[in-house]
Amino acid sequence: MDNFIFHSPTKFIFGKGREDSVGGLLSEAGAKKVLIHYGSGSVVRSGLLARIKASLEKEQIQYVELGGVLPNPVDSMVYKGIDLCREEKVDFVLAVGGGSTIDSAKAIALGVPYQGDFWDYFESGDAPEKVLPVATVLTIAAAGSEGSEHTVITRLNGSKKRGYGHPKMRPLFSILNPALTQTLPKNQTAAGAADIMAHIFERYMTNTKDVEVSDRLCEALLLTMLREVPKAISDPNNYEARANIMWAGMIAHNDLVGVGREQDWSSHAIEHELSSLYGIAHGAGLAVVFPAWMHFVMQHDIARFAQLATRVFGCEMDYFHPENTGRQGIERLEAFFSSIDLPTRFQELGGQEKDIPYLAEHIGIGSGRLGYFVPLSTEDVIEIYKWMCRPTKRA
Amino acid sequence: MDNFIFHSPTKFIFGKGREDSVGGLLSEAGAKKVLIHYGSGSVVRSGLLARIKASLEKEQIQYVELGGVLPNPVDSMVYKGIDLCREEKVDFVLAVGGGSTIDSAKAIALGVPYQGDFWDYFESGDAPEKVLPVATVLTIAAAGSEGSEHTVITRLNGSKKRGYGHPKMRPLFSILNPALTQTLPKNQTAAGAADIMAHIFERYMTNTKDVEVSDRLCEALLLTMLREVPKAISDPNNYEARANIMWAGMIAHNDLVGVGREQDWSSHAIEHELSSLYGIAHGAGLAVVFPAWMHFVMQHDIARFAQLATRVFGCEMDYFHPENTGRQGIERLEAFFSSIDLPTRFQELGGQEKDIPYLAEHIGIGSGRLGYFVPLSTEDVIEIYKWMCRPTKRA
Repeated sequence: MDNFIFHSPTKFIFGKGREDSVGGLLSEAGAKKVLIHYGSGSVVRSGLLARIKASLEKEQIQYVELGGVLPNPVDSMVYKGIDLCREEKVDFVLAVGGGSTIDSAKAIALGVPYQGDFWDYFESGDAPEKVLPVATVLTIAAAGSEGSEHTVITRLNGSKKRGYGHPKMRPLFSILNPALTQTLPKNQTAAGAADIMAHIFERYMTNTKDVEVSDRLCEALLLTMLREVPKAISDPNNYEARANIMWAGMIAHNDLVGVGREQDWSSHAIEHELSSLYGIAHGAGLAVVFPAWMHFVMQHDIARFAQLATRVFGCEMDYFHPENTGRQGIERLEAFFSSIDLPTRFQELGGQEKDIPYLAEHIGIGSGRLGYFVPLSTEDVIEIYKWMCRPTKRA
Repeated sequence: MDNFIFHSPTKFIFGKGREDSVGGLLSEAGAKKVLIHYGSGSVVRSGLLARIKASLEKEQIQYVELGGVLPNPVDSMVYKGIDLCREEKVDFVLAVGGGSTIDSAKAIALGVPYQGDFWDYFESGDAPEKVLPVATVLTIAAAGSEGSEHTVITRLNGSKKRGYGHPKMRPLFSILNPALTQTLPKNQTAAGAADIMAHIFERYMTNTKDVEVSDRLCEALLLTMLREVPKAISDPNNYEARANIMWAGMIAHNDLVGVGREQDWSSHAIEHELSSLYGIAHGAGLAVVFPAWMHFVMQHDIARFAQLATRVFGCEMDYFHPENTGRQGIERLEAFFSSIDLPTRFQELGGQEKDIPYLAEHIGIGSGRLGYFVPLSTEDVIEIYKWMCRPTKRA
């Protein structure tokens, strides 16, 4: 196990009706004027936004609103938010929505106190001096942004999708009411599940030895997802399934299960190109990318894939041919994604094979590094994209 | 899943050599004068205390020292610490040691700003207005106090062992260097393991339904312990095993795996009477108490015991007689404790059967409640103590 620091100071307020406490929590945190940031009209239509405002008004907290965050949040909205916060002297950013809204809120909170362009941080990776405090009311179990220090923003000019993270961007508090996710359509529930599972796989696939405790915790979360997601898909109103998924989604990405081990985030980068070019849901892209990436890298550590297959996917170990067990695990993952109607092929994302060289080049590996479990070259990425185009078994 | 709040703001600095950063961390936290609190002479002999002092001196942080905390920490030491902190105008308490030292440090930090007797909090359960900040350098993987809001203190007058907890007592930071646990004798390593496993069982045994994610996380930690503890027992210098156990021990008790579910801490209370009367290690007592308690309550929820037996102890499910599977799980737990040379019988703790009525009465159930999974009467507790006296299979 490698040396590490783990610090997850976010306060999680979990359960039914919890969003009504938001005003009190903001007041406790000393917020004077809040930006309420949200995405689509669904938080308006459901009455959630009105309830949030009522809770703030009860505590005499001032606020301004900014809605319209896109599923893949863009820099133009961040600039708009920064300007608004400066004009209105906002001292606290409250995100009401899913990962995109929270990521947009974090980028705004990062940009407000900074003299230059917030995008500088995404290019340089430098640490910020100050970030406005951020809190969240989560409405989608997926990105894990409610408990993480990360944000992912798309720069429209050049369609670059890039991530940035710093401990100062961890939300001060996050309100998680699983009932708010009951209105999600099935495809969003499924895409969110794929995102959560990807966050676990990206930590699970490591070259660090002797990491039994985090291996086991990763497996625990994956087993939870395999059991609970189909319940939420077949009955969207299943509160208990929603609750298990929502809490697993937070733990999957606050890094508890990833500390002390090298991680591999190349799949996320490979997917970011897809959602950036085709405008698809990140989770849907990940459902296509992950089995393909696993297929490409499995030979690097067959034992690890066999462990995953037996402990998580219930495969019987073939002691004489462990690669068969590993392969069966990947097939079961793909079958699981199919069973919840996620795409598993490039074409299903609207992808065209002719775009593959562009996609691979655009990641911009250059002299940099993509991946730690297995470092990938641009040619490797092309191979992985091509594998996504293979015919389905059903076809 | 029940509604809950989870807030674990402690910063964990984990790995080899991390104790050398303690001065910098204290300086960052604004500490001016620190009480260094420790237990036995081993932290002196090993040179750890000298390294800690050197780190503080480098940052020009003043300190006073108080050693001699007993394995079951007592109120007289707490009073001594409170007096010393007031005289010396200490503003930060640093515990260097295991759970007993950390618990003693928390009680001191609780008592210093309070006008009355710190024990008031243990009787009333009231929330404190202020607590001095606490940090830890952990030397034993066991109690989980490095990440928890709890403390357990023995009151010498009347030999009462009582617990108290409040979020303000969570350590500000905790330094976890697994190498510091390599010098522990086998019996202390084993007793620590039993304590960690008990913290998991106490959360696992619940009547709350649909808690798959926390069930799975509990099981993940137990599986880790079953695999790693025997390695650390057979080779005390196995850093990797020590690291997995140490991190599992923290997660087992910062309540991540216990939120959203009713818990049952009656076993801890039953054990506290044993360690209070016979002066034994808490973990050794738990190894005796747990299988007996499980035997007594299993009929209440056979499915849960069968789940534990199959998922954690590798038992094959007997679908027609699930109680056989559940019982086999308990037997395997007992066999595991035996395999690491922990006691499993009352007599091995120096217990005498004639003490049983006194022990059971002394818990003081009265009109109160002991246990949530299965509420226990004084008669039930007597039954459980008696079961601990049964002949061993080997005999």
